[in-house]
Order: sequence, then C-alpha cells, then structure tokens
Amino acid sequence: MKKTGRLTIPSERDYLAETKKLMEIWGADAIRDSDGTKLDEALKQLEAKIYTTYFVARNHNDFVEKHMDEVQQIYLLSERGLSDGAGKVTINLLEGFFAEQILPNYDDDPKKYWEVRDRTSGEVIDTDQWKVNQETNDVYLTDVKPFHEYTVSFLAYMIWDPTQMYNHITNDWGDIPHDIPFDVRKPHSQKYMMDYLVQWLEDNPDTDVVRFTTFFYHFTLFFNQLGKEKFVDWFGYGSTVSVATLEAFEAEYGYALTPEDFVDEGYYNSSFRVPSQSYLDYIEFIQKFVCKEAGKLVAQVHKSGKEAMMFLGDNWIGTEPYGDHFHEIGMDAVVGSVGNGTTLRLISEIPHVKYTEGRFLPYFFPDVFYEGNDPTVEAKENWLTARRAILRKPVDRIGYGGYLSLANQFPKFVDYVGKVADEFRELYDNIDQSKPYTGLTVGILNAWGKLRSWQTHMVAHALWYRQIYSYNGVLEALSGQKVEVVFLNFDDLKDGVPQDIDVLINAGDEATAFSGGAHWQDVKLIEIITQWVHNGGGFIGVGDPSAYQQNGRYFQLASILGVEKERGFTLSTDKYFNKETDDHFITANSGDIQFGEGKKNIYALSEATQILRIEEDSVQLATHDFGQGRGVYFSGLPYTPANSALFLRALFYAAGKEKELYQWYSENPSVEVHAYPEVGKYAVVNNHDQPEEALVYLNNDQKEIVHLAPGEIIWRDYHE
Amino acid sequence: MKKTGRLTIPSERDYLAETKKLMEIWGADAIRDSDGTKLDEALKQLEAKIYTTYFVARNHNDFVEKHMDEVQQIYLLSERGLSDGAGKVTINLLEGFFAEQILPNYDDDPKKYWEVRDRTSGEVIDTDQWKVNQETNDVYLTDVKPFHEYTVSFLAYMIWDPTQMYNHITNDWGDIPHDIPFDVRKPHSQKYMMDYLVQWLEDNPDTDVVRFTTFFYHFTLFFNQLGKEKFVDWFGYGSTVSVATLEAFEAEYGYALTPEDFVDEGYYNSSFRVPSQSYLDYIEFIQKFVCKEAGKLVAQVHKSGKEAMMFLGDNWIGTEPYGDHFHEIGMDAVVGSVGNGTTLRLISEIPHVKYTEGRFLPYFFPDVFYEGNDPTVEAKENWLTARRAILRKPVDRIGYGGYLSLANQFPKFVDYVGKVADEFRELYDNIDQSKPYTGLTVGILNAWGKLRSWQTHMVAHALWYRQIYSYNGVLEALSGQKVEVVFLNFDDLKDGVPQDIDVLINAGDEATAFSGGAHWQDVKLIEIITQWVHNGGGFIGVGDPSAYQQNGRYFQLASILGVEKERGFTLSTDKYFNKETDDHFITANSGDIQFGEGKKNIYALSEATQILRIEEDSVQLATHDFGQGRGVYFSGLPYTPANSALFLRALFYAAGKEKELYQWYSENPSVEVHAYPEVGKYAVVNNHDQPEEALVYLNNDQKEIVHLAPGEIIWRDYHE
Repeated sequence: MKKTGRLTIPSERDYLAETKKLMEIWGADAIRDSDGTKLDEALKQLEAKIYTTYFVARNHNDFVEKHMDEVQQIYLLSERGLSDGAGKVTINLLEGFFAEQILPNYDDDPKKYWEVRDRTSGEVIDTDQWKVNQETNDVYLTDVKPFHEYTVSFLAYMIWDPTQMYNHITNDWGDIPHDIPFDVRKPHSQKYMMDYLVQWLEDNPDTDVVRFTTFFYHFTLFFNQLGKEKFVDWFGYGSTVSVATLEAFEAEYGYALTPEDFVDEGYYNSSFRVPSQSYLDYIEFIQKFVCKEAGKLVAQVHKSGKEAMMFLGDNWIGTEPYGDHFHEIGMDAVVGSVGNGTTLRLISEIPHVKYTEGRFLPYFFPDVFYEGNDPTVEAKENWLTARRAILRKPVDRIGYGGYLSLANQFPKFVDYVGKVADEFRELYDNIDQSKPYTGLTVGILNAWGKLRSWQTHMVAHALWYRQIYSYNGVLEALSGQKVEVVFLNFDDLKDGVPQDIDVLINAGDEATAFSGGAHWQDVKLIEIITQWVHNGGGFIGVGDPSAYQQNGRYFQLASILGVEKERGFTLSTDKYFNKETDDHFITANSGDIQFGEGKKNIYALSEATQILRIEEDSVQLATHDFGQGRGVYFSGLPYTPANSALFLRALFYAAGKEKELYQWYSENPSVEVHAYPEVGKYAVVNNHDQPEEALVYLNNDQKEIVHLAPGEIIWRDYHE
Repeated sequence: MKKTGRLTIPSERDYLAETKKLMEIWGADAIRDSDGTKLDEALKQLEAKIYTTYFVARNHNDFVEKHMDEVQQIYLLSERGLSDGAGKVTINLLEGFFAEQILPNYDDDPKKYWEVRDRTSGEVIDTDQWKVNQETNDVYLTDVKPFHEYTVSFLAYMIWDPTQMYNHITNDWGDIPHDIPFDVRKPHSQKYMMDYLVQWLEDNPDTDVVRFTTFFYHFTLFFNQLGKEKFVDWFGYGSTVSVATLEAFEAEYGYALTPEDFVDEGYYNSSFRVPSQSYLDYIEFIQKFVCKEAGKLVAQVHKSGKEAMMFLGDNWIGTEPYGDHFHEIGMDAVVGSVGNGTTLRLISEIPHVKYTEGRFLPYFFPDVFYEGNDPTVEAKENWLTARRAILRKPVDRIGYGGYLSLANQFPKFVDYVGKVADEFRELYDNIDQSKPYTGLTVGILNAWGKLRSWQTHMVAHALWYRQIYSYNGVLEALSGQKVEVVFLNFDDLKDGVPQDIDVLINAGDEATAFSGGAHWQDVKLIEIITQWVHNGGGFIGVGDPSAYQQNGRYFQLASILGVEKERGFTLSTDKYFNKETDDHFITANSGDIQFGEGKKNIYALSEATQILRIEEDSVQLATHDFGQGRGVYFSGLPYTPANSALFLRALFYAAGKEKELYQWYSENPSVEVHAYPEVGKYAVVNNHDQPEEALVYLNNDQKEIVHLAPGEIIWRDYHE
C-alpha cells in the first residue's frame, strides 16, 4: 500500500477537487494557506491537517492606530555630516532612509535617548551643542570641531512592517494599507495580542496548526529614500528596542545601554562583528522576553487543542532555536525554507520541538512556473542538494508554498513532487529515528558557537555574497557527511577542548566573529588548542584562521597550521618552502579543487609544512604535523562535490583516522554512503542528476561497485 | 670637438692599451677597481681620476684576530621552542643559523643581556628559569608554562662579513680567509681604523678618490644552517649593537633598550613595520655616531688632497643620506647602483655632496657577457628606464663595474656605451644644473617620510617581491614626471599640510609603515587632511590607504576617497554603486591599465564616487569630489608606461589642475617631454626601444607631432 503523509501543500479558494487529486497523487496530509492565498471552508473540511498563518504583531492596524506610542522602534544612525570651518553642521535624520517606514521618535526626549557623536574622534557630543527641528528632522550642531564627521543615533518608529513593505512595493499593492508593527512589551499591545489570539482560536475551529509568522520582532530591515533595501540583517535585533526595553534591561543587568550599543559605529552588530558583551547581554535579554511571551501564546494554542508551529524567518528575532531559552516557548514545530544542506540542518537539528518541517523550492510562483520553463530543474537541484543533509538528520516533514493551481499546470513537476515525497517517506521510515554512522566529531569554533548553529557566514538568510561563499562550503560539505557537527564558542574551550571533538575548525576572514578577531588575544585559548592538537587533535583553518597580530604572528596558531600570512613584516625573511607535495592522503584522486576567493600571501613556515596547493606564490592548501596531531590549512572552500569529498578526506586526515575513512565511503565525489547501524540499513545516494558508478566501501573492509541512475538513492540491508 | 668626462669605468691589471682605447671611445675620465680586480701602477698613471675601493671595518683580519671582543655583534631571535607538558623546553641557539657567521656572545653576561620570552603570552621569563650550555649552545627552560612557545633573544658575534660571505660562497672561494667585521665604537678598532687610513692615504698617492664601501656597519644579512640567505634587510640596523652601544644609548637618551627593541618579535624592525619611538631613537643614535666618525675619516682623506666617495650599499647603515646627520660626514660624492628611475632619483637627490654617480647595468660579468648573448639588451633597458629620471634630476656622473676585458669582447656593447655616454653628457650640459618645469608638488605620506626618500617598499635594494611591485609603480612613475616629489612623515603634518603640496599620496598595505597603521589613530591627522582636501587639496590612496579599524571605518579617509573596504561588517548594507563611469579625465585615452595584485572588497560609499574601473565587484580605480578637493583611489599601480601616463593624469586631476597637464605633455605614454625654462630648452624623449610618434603639447598652447627613433631623445630650444 502506498505510503502517505509527511507532506504539506498549499491550497487556495475554490480549488477543492484539484486539491483532493493532488493530495492523493502526492500523499499529502496537511494543507496550508500562503501569503496571498486563503483556504475556503470546503478545503478546511478535507482529511488533512489545516495550517493557518498567524501574525502576532502586525496586520492589526485597527488596534495599533489607536496606540501609536506602542509602534515598534529602532535605533538608527544618520548619515555622516562634515562640520564646516566654523564648527557647524546640519544633519537631516531621514537622509538616506525611507520616510514611509521611518519616523523619528520625538515622544521620548531626544536629549536623553539620542546620541550625537564625533565619528572622527569617536567622542559623544554634549547635548548643549545640538538641537533638532521636529518639522524638518534636521539636527543642527554648533561649536563642534571643524572638519570632523558627525552622526546622530536616534530612536525611530518603524511604521511599516518590513516583510509587508517588501511585498507591497515589489507587487505594487497600491493603496493596501501599510501594516504597522507594534511592540508587545507595551501594555495595550500585550493585552491585545492575547485577547486577539483567544478570540481567533475560537473563530478558527478548523485550524489544526497555528503557523506563527513568527512572533514579535522582525529581523533588521530598512529601506532607503528610493524605497529600496538599504540594510538587511537576518540576525539583527534592531527592531526590538524602546525606552521600556532599555529601562527593563538596566533593571535586570545593572547597567544602561547607550545608543552606540545598537548602532555600533554603523555596523549595527552585524553577526560578522565579534559580539560585544553588552550585545550578547542584550540579545539574551530579548530572548528571555520573547520566549516567555511566546510561551504564553503557545500555551493558549495548546489549550484550544491546536498545535503551534513557527516559521523560522521574518519576525523570528529573539526565538534563537539553538539558544538557552527556546525550550520555554514549548513550540510543537518549526518550519523553515530549505535552500541547501546547511539550511536543512539548521531546521532539522532544532531541539525542543516535536517535529520540523522543511519548505522546499521552488515556490509555486509565476517567476518559475511560466510557460516554456521546467520547474523540475530547480526542484531537482534543491532536492538533491538538501537530501544529503536529510540523510544525516531528517526534517520530519516536507512542504511547498505558493499557488497550487499554478503547479498543477505542470504535469512533469506534479510527477516529480510525487517521487520526492515517496522518496522522502521511504527515507524517513528507513532511518526510523536512528542515528547514522558517524566517523568523527567536528567542532566549529567561532565567537557565536552553539547559539548560531548552522548559521555561520549568513547575511540575508541564504543569499550569495562574494565574501562568504568561500566559507559556506565548510558547513555545506559537513551537512551531508558522516561526521557529528557541534558548534563551539571560545568560552566553550576555557576548560579544554570538549572530550568528544576530533577536529576543530576555525573558518573566516580576519577580524570577523567567525575567525574570532580579538578572542585570539586570549593566551589560555591558544595554550589549550596547542596542547590539544599536540596530544593528537586535528585543527583545520580556513581563510584567516586565528588571525590577530601579536607576539610575532598573525595566525596565532601558525605553529600548528605550518603556515602564516605575509603582511609585509617578514618580507626580509627568505621563504624557501614552496614545493607542492605530489602524493598526499588528502589530495589522492582529488578532482578539481576550488578555493573560491582564496587568500594571498600565505607562506609555509618551514619544510615541515606539506604544501598540497600553491598558486601565485601563496599556499592554498597545506598540512602540518604537530606533535601527535595535525593542522590543515585551506585558503577557502566553496561548495562543490569535489571540494566536499576533499574536505572529508582532510577531516579524517586531521583526526589521524585515515583508515576509518574507508568505512561507509564512496570514491566518487557525487556519490555518498550513509549507514544506520541501529536499523541495519545503508543508503548509497547519487547527488548528481547524471548516472554514476561508484566504488563503495562498506563496513568490515567490504567493497562494491554500485551503479546509480541520475539522482538515485539505493537502500540496502546489512549486518555487522 | 667630442665631449668627454662624467664617466667612470672599471679596469684591471695588465690591460693598459685596451683601457686607453676604451677611455677614448667612451670619453671616460675616471678608472675604478672592482671586487676582484685591482689597478696596476701603469693604469694609475693614465690621465684619469683613480677610484680605489676602501674597506673600513673588514678586510683587516690581522688586526681583529687580536681583538675578537671588538667583533661586530647582532641581537638574534632563536627559533621558537614549544614547552612540553612538564614545562620544559630546550632551544638551540644556532638552530637555523649559519655557524660560520654567528657565534653566541658569552663574554657579556647572558643573564643580563639576553631575554627569554614566552611568545604565546609575550611575557619575559625570569632568568632563574633558564640556563645556557656554552658548549652546545643549548638553552634549557624549566618550570615555564606548558604548551607555550619560547624564544631566546641573544647577542651574537658576526664573525663573517655578509658581503664577503655571499661572494665567498657564491664564487666558491675555498680557503680564502673570512673577513671578520669589527666595531669601530670599540677603542682598538677606532684607533686602528684611523691609523690604517692615515698610512693607506700615504701609501696610495695615485688614488684620487677613496671609494668607501662603505663605513662601519653592514645592513642586516644573515644566513641559515645551509649557508643560504635567511634574512636580508637593506635598511636593517641589526649589526650595530653591542653592550657599549647599549650603554652609550642609555646615557644619551635616558632609557635602556631591551633585546626586544632589536628582535621585534622576529620582525627585526623591518621597514614595513610602523617604527616604534625606541627604534627611531636608536637609529638616530647610530646615525649620529656613524656620521661623526665617518666625518673624521673623510677629513683625513681631504687632508691628503683626495676626494671621499661612498658607495650606497653594503656597510651604508647609519649614513642615511636623507637624514639629519649625513651632512656632518662632509662626503664629496655618493655612488650607487641604478636599477630604474626610482633608484636613480634615490642617488641623484642626495643632498650635501658635490656630486653623485650612478652605476649602470649590466655589470661586466660572465652571467651577461657570454658568447651568443647581447648585453646591449639589458643596457638599453636600464638606460631607457633610468633616463626619464635623469631628465628630472641628473646624477653628475655615470659608470660601470666588472671586468673591462670582458666588455671589450662585445663591440656592439662597446658602441652602445659610447652612445649612452655621449647622450648623458649632452643631456647634462643641456640641463646645465637648471630646474626642470614642474606642474605640481606631490607629497608621499608614510611613517618614514624624508628619512627614506625614494626608498619606500624596498626589501633587498631593488628586488621584485609580489607584495611590493603594485606599489613600486608610484615612485617609478613619479621619478620621471614633471612633478616635484617630497617625502613626508605623519609628524610633518602636525601643523597642517605643508604649503607647497598639491597632492598627498598614501600608498601601502594595511598595517605597514607605508600606509601608516596605528598613525591613523591620530584624530588631528585625519582632521588636518580632511580640511586640506576640502579646501582644494588632492589625496591619492593606493592599496589600503589610511587603513585602521575605528569609528566605523577601515579607511580612515574613506569620506575623501569615496571608497571603503568591506571586511564583512557591512555586508548587511546594500551596495548599489558599481557602475563604471565611461568618460573621465583620468582614463581618457588610457591604455591597458594594470592594478598588479590589486585589492579585493573595495566598494563605493555612494553615488558621488566615480568608479573608473571595477573588477569582480571590487573597485580598482575611483575618484571622488570632496569639497573643493578630490580623492583618487588606486587598488595598485605597478609600473608600466600606460600606468605611468594614467597616474600623471590622476595627479593633475586630483590637484584640480587638468588644464595645466597640457603644458609640456605628450599624449603617447612612451614619450615624455621635459622643459628647462631657465635655459630655454626642452627634450622629447622616447622611452621605448621602438619608433614612436607623439602629439606633444608645448607651452602657450602650442602642439606638434614628433617622430622619434627607438629610444631617441630630441633637444630643442624655445622661448616663453
């Protein structure tokens, strides 16, 4: 009998018969509404779970328009203004901002809550030296130092929800009202959100799953004077602030935050910045509030007999699924968008929920579903990319979004989704909650650690940026490999490297949170890693690992890695070591190795460094024995199947477990093997949309040649 | 009548007739000996000035072997040693050093004059925690922190002169004794050097010019355990130290130096390091000593009726021809090797001498002068490269080195040298000490300023390094252009940018002395440059200009330049400005623009930045109006004729003097024009070894088309 379930599909008004047909073809067991689609009563009566999108803190203008002092706020940094020879400068607060989104907050005393800074010297300007014109939003500075640059850090109301603003502008929604987000920390808003939910739960008896999109605070997103995106930080806590917030923070933490804690010289605490203690305190403070308040809503949902699901995005700020407070929400499920293996793991690894759901691509939208285009191309790529991560740690459900009626016009696509759903259900049943075989444990070391598991080097969710793709390959490779992955911050190492770690990875550009920047001032940290590697640990550095200039080194772990960066200071030192080693475990049978943006000016410290690749006088890939352990250096690691295969070899080499590599191992980079000892099954999986042949190593030194159709997954039983 | 003079040639024993013939063909008026060649008595009687090489502080082993405590010394940093789990580590001092050159100094108490450091923490280790075995040169550390790295900074005798060592090893001189350098600060050495010179002057009546090679201290150069170069710093003061030096320094400056002041974490105060105040004090201290003592020798030379000339190299340390003390030597002449326009200007601009002499390439050595090779190829390239600089500021003489008998076997070369000599003499006579027309004044701003005029980004004199060629093009372009060039350090700007400057240039990699590193912490500096540019000045940044992370900027002058470096912190900020401007004064008619190593991650701050070149999302060339002034950014500027022409346009654009460019200007990058208003002459010069046609702009809006033969220089008279 055909298996069904574990699949959520969108539907829309007046589409009952077709929905029933597709549910049957695909084996779907849940129906959701979408942005721009609502389910009608007939649909809600189908034999399926009904998901209904729910907005907590926007989409209620009737309420908020009566309480405009409870609108969400943000600290913004004005453009820089240069003072003239007489020490005068005028700064217009809204220059470069979108007046339809941003409204300076004059209700809370600017002289108390704003800050004018000399950005040339970094000093705060005395409040006597500036005044603000509320009509024009001009701030006048007088008697300041000539030819310095000044900024105003000001509190502003966010009078338009960023996601609705984006959709509104993009889709030309004309005079549809602008959703005004409100701050549930404020009394009316807090009461309103609960009252409304109670009523809503009563009014929506057919809803099985309340799909929160999400809770209270949107990630930081604001537009410029042309109505185009100016700043987007998927991790940004910018929109969580208000005077009430500041006061509550001070009461709890014993010190006051300043505007600078938010605007951060204009960097707005980007996750690439090494986070300050005050910022870490602040986001913890917000998490505690969000998780507590969200917990109340979820309790109400449960009381009504429904499930609570959260969308990982939009207003997710403060939930931090990998944080210490997420469990307090009592969430039943998380759903998130799956762009690749990394984002799949980001969702599937979330703890403290009953199930996770991955929303797959493409959306059923006209940008992909148009005549002459084949939407299965994107669907296949998305599925094959994510599937290798699913095989390590499955989401519990998959799903799609958009217009079902659109997808239904593409029979080949309808057919493909059916195959994906079947394949997913088979996979899920085969794995049966068991842990896959794991050859070693890898610790990703950066300033964020566990809190931002599977979220390194991200800017706007999963977009491509030139500065990140050479690092993204690390997590993307790991997401589908036979290794355990844990995320560690520098503090996690203060009593030593955790017992179970085989290989530590530090990957990132100099001075960022991901390489660690000033954390490498910590002598104890260097000592602990040095000792650990010397005693047999493996350390892999990518890009500018452990970069911090002090004590005659830029890479603080240069002695482990065997490579260092030339910053000009050692040009006088002769560099003899530039020969590639032909024959090495890591590069054996390697395909085309890509370093992405790579790095310049990396040199080997001595002949003990084995250089595996050097390009234009700069080492790109090297290994170095250090005591009983090993260091490995990559200048960059964009994701490709060949790079991923190479990285797996590097991991086992760094750990000194070369032999163990050949257990559940495929020599073909496009083919991977996953074993599930608890259930006595293994899968051989072709990640490539072409036929592949692979020499596959099983357990107990057995080998076999496996032939796979394009994208095929083969399941077999085995006994130890 | 054929002109003669201004030319020095080498000769050798038993080569009288040929020497006379070549002197006549070339119009030479001076004969020199060389390394490995001596002049015989007959040669010394020719109608020519006789130059004789003179070594002050080496080549006198008979003396020094009786005073081995006066041998020159150096502070060296041992290799790093990792302590074991018990806090023990043994470091062998000579590991990685050449035992034939280096001898640890146990005469001065190691516990007093050495330093053992924890290089992981930077701390000095108590002297109780280590001891040294003088037999084995092992230093034993006990009770130190486990898994830290340690080094020993130790005083060592330099028992082999580096230049002789190089020649000895390279040419396999077998059992020829090793020249032991001695320190003329010590009493016996000081007496000896003077006594010997007095006697020598008496013994060498035919010598007209005593060619000092050079004075007391060799630039830092030491070899490794394989007898190969380990460290070479043409600017290095390493070999000037001793306990006597340290004590004299403390007496004069009121504070004691430590070994760390010399070994500098292993960077040995490379000129790429932003110099510390103690290092600046120390080199000034050495300069005072060297110039005073050298002055005594020169006075003695003068007393004997001879001239004193110094070779700019080898033992030149402490002379610093652009320093405050050089004039005290009373030197008659400086001779130096000419590799290009920059090194030509380095020599020709030296103040306080009666004349300068450039030694041109190739040396008459078998590596170039062998059957089948045409030495005129290198000679032409050398001459054409240097000539454009000579036209700005001539050396007073030219010359060659090596084996005259070898050169004489290449008639085409003999002919070419004759042409060069004639051309040089004509040029010198035409210019007649007058100042060339200059369109503007450029200030090169770095941490060294005037002291290291024409010496930026040099490692081992004029060798190619990947990390410097993208900056070397700046000085090389300027060396032959119609601009005045001055060198400024940051202190020179403390009361404002000097009056005469039209354009400031800051060129270098981040954190180096050439971009300035921590000097950009100085708010006043930023203010002064900001005001100056705003009032009309021009600022050109190359590479990482004004790079220092603070106050929301990496390029501290980003507001002037209109560009900033993306270090990850502003990835969340949208970057819309990436369109190239097609039509711009700087790039009008530009040839192939090369950025060399260039820079990644440079972005335009606003639409006000005019991007002239962007490659792989990174701005390579841009301009930005700032008040009445302008900023210009280059990611790199290796020397090519096209780049040089482009840079000249950028200079005039930055200065707001676009119109003035078209006075004494050629539109062909291979052709340059130099005018000499005081004598009413101008030269049109073809720097290319091919025929060229050029549209040439004279004064008063006149233009002419000029046709030039390969390498031709045309002289014409004009009237204002």
